[in-house]
Amino acid sequence: MQQLEEKIRTEGQVLGDDVLKVDNFLNHQIDPELMYAMGQEFYRLFQSKKITKILTVESSGIAPAVMAGLIFKVPVVFARKHKSLTLKDNLYTATVYSFTKKVSNEISISKKFLDADDHVLIIDDFLANGQAVQGLMEIIDAANATLEGVGIVIEKTFQKGRQLLDEKGVQVESLARIKAFENGQVVFVDDK
Amino acid sequence: MQQLEEKIRTEGQVLGDDVLKVDNFLNHQIDPELMYAMGQEFYRLFQSKKITKILTVESSGIAPAVMAGLIFKVPVVFARKHKSLTLKDNLYTATVYSFTKKVSNEISISKKFLDADDHVLIIDDFLANGQAVQGLMEIIDAANATLEGVGIVIEKTFQKGRQLLDEKGVQVESLARIKAFENGQVVFVDDK
Repeated sequence: MQQLEEKIRTEGQVLGDDVLKVDNFLNHQIDPELMYAMGQEFYRLFQSKKITKILTVESSGIAPAVMAGLIFKVPVVFARKHKSLTLKDNLYTATVYSFTKKVSNEISISKKFLDADDHVLIIDDFLANGQAVQGLMEIIDAANATLEGVGIVIEKTFQKGRQLLDEKGVQVESLARIKAFENGQVVFVDDK
Repeated sequence: MQQLEEKIRTEGQVLGDDVLKVDNFLNHQIDPELMYAMGQEFYRLFQSKKITKILTVESSGIAPAVMAGLIFKVPVVFARKHKSLTLKDNLYTATVYSFTKKVSNEISISKKFLDADDHVLIIDDFLANGQAVQGLMEIIDAANATLEGVGIVIEKTFQKGRQLLDEKGVQVESLARIKAFENGQVVFVDDK
């Protein structure tokens, strides 16, 4: 998605070898018009699927997910993150390890918001090692719901998340695919 | 806002004397079309103000704030919640006490996303005791920005938040104003 790649090039900040900071328009400050354009793009990519629900994880997934939900005309459910959970009644839960923050969180979704009739599109801000998406997939499995696809804002193709999802036969569509960081600059897969 | 009051009446859950659970459409599962309609209503209510930025708090404030941002065509910044903050460089911070959860959190916004030229609309999901809004107001003060108004999805008029903000001369507009809970039912200010 051209508009997004331009935004990443001009406003993204490369930190170290593998971290891209996009808190100018996605992770802290949000550009709502860009989020809407991303929602339209997710709709274009997944409109052939029968989607009944969009799943994401708080907080940075909410803005792109809710714009996609507006266009798909389906509810959005965001998984909550917890340091640890003692009471798990009525919740689907999964453990998600963050390689960036080097910490495990539990994520949860109330059982009443996901069931066997649901056809789910997962939307998330980043795909790196694929831990968050895998956590959501465990929850979808536990609910006997059907995963229809995964929509990602920014994918780092050099980390293992994409491969994990490809091996499971999941349709993954990323709006920006980063091949590498070179001298503090972002190189996209479709760069010449 | 008729559509919101109907939704609260049919899908809200009154718990005990003063808690309203609306995780069917706002706090966990989100109804994106309702969020968009709320964004339009916030625009109608504050369109005479020169708004340059919308501020909210993660996570439940993000959906209504980002829809309002789409219509106002301004960036949205969500304050992050932390149990405690050790490094406060480059951050505006405030301490927010939650009466519901009986816990204090620190909220923070990067200094680069708020400055003296900003005219801010605060948007949040609930106004009860007004702690979150007051925390955001401290941050706006610290940045020497101008507060133009506060837009609330659901106000509990019988708690002290509204009075605190009225005393400070802030324009507060709430899309649903709850007067009381009676026998597990919601009574709105504009009910006969």
